Amino acid sequence: MHQIVTLLFNNFETLDVFGPLEILGRLKKEFHVNLYSLEGGIIKSTQDVPVHTRTLSRMNFENYILMIPGGIGTRELINDEIFLEHLKTLSINAEYILTICTGSILLAKTGLLDDKKATTNKRVFKWTEHFPKVDWVREARWVTDKNIYTSSGVSAGMDMALGFVADQLGYEVAKRQSIQIEYDWKEDSTWDPFSTLYTDNTP
Amino acid sequence: MHQIVTLLFNNFETLDVFGPLEILGRLKKEFHVNLYSLEGGIIKSTQDVPVHTRTLSRMNFENYILMIPGGIGTRELINDEIFLEHLKTLSINAEYILTICTGSILLAKTGLLDDKKATTNKRVFKWTEHFPKVDWVREARWVTDKNIYTSSGVSAGMDMALGFVADQLGYEVAKRQSIQIEYDWKEDSTWDPFSTLYTDNTP
Repeated sequence: MHQIVTLLFNNFETLDVFGPLEILGRLKKEFHVNLYSLEGGIIKSTQDVPVHTRTLSRMNFENYILMIPGGIGTRELINDEIFLEHLKTLSINAEYILTICTGSILLAKTGLLDDKKATTNKRVFKWTEHFPKVDWVREARWVTDKNIYTSSGVSAGMDMALGFVADQLGYEVAKRQSIQIEYDWKEDSTWDPFSTLYTDNTP
Repeated sequence: MHQIVTLLFNNFETLDVFGPLEILGRLKKEFHVNLYSLEGGIIKSTQDVPVHTRTLSRMNFENYILMIPGGIGTRELINDEIFLEHLKTLSINAEYILTICTGSILLAKTGLLDDKKATTNKRVFKWTEHFPKVDWVREARWVTDKNIYTSSGVSAGMDMALGFVADQLGYEVAKRQSIQIEYDWKEDSTWDPFSTLYTDNTP
């Protein structure tokens, strides 16, 4: 049993979180969903979804998967030293890290993505230029580097989560989940028609 | 501005709700997201996501879109007279109704889908046999009949929500939203590879 530590903050992007949690949360024998924030209580997504979270100070488990979503809220957090210190500690101790969308930018800011392959949202890919030590991959639905999974924008988190399930429990388990939620899983992590849409990102 | 009245209950399916709300909630000038339950307070999805809801008794707006998700929780609610009475009143007064997955089964139980076209989750399509007055469509990602939109299982709600946006605000708006969330929108509402997967449903 893996604990999933989902790190929420105000103005997170709704589907970044609940796409992957739909998939992992169905596998109840394998994963246990937990929602945390720095101070606990109600956290609201940009789309006005109020979620109940527990405070990080109550965290006392090992063997966890850290999930870091993206969203407009990351623009403030990238300059929030206290948040970043917590994020770094959580990330160092995590067995696996899954980021969605601009969640990878937050992780990059901690330095823990240096010399690692990663991706992020294609619409704001220019943001990656602030973190030149990371080996950013433009054309990818998701990227895996050892225990760190990073995905492209918003809905890509679902494909990454299914890829993570395939790596952990086998392809058949992942495929079955995708069928049960009637989802057209992009099994190929290099599928990415969105990578060429934004001209400011092309070389 | 349309209010979205999302009707939650314990053991709703996470993505049924948050896929469509991701899409509608991004269009802040057009839609305002509200989460309700019969008694208010924390409601938990089957995937252990605790959401803060307001009680239905505080509902006093007009011109709303009713969203009815599915999930394991529907198996109890289908026999809950008080819930069904509230659902029927809410449905009669709604400008539009959007159901996801087995949410359409709940709506069918109120009688308001009689003589209308509708669809539901393909894995439990057999459930539709209890409601022979509804014109059930097996092969469909989503179905529209006047002001009622019904979708297939779980992830189909996102495609339906984008179809609803296209009907309300034009195709270009919907397409732009799908690109911004890097989603491979199934624009064709008849796309449905899942409709033939379950042999107990084929004629």
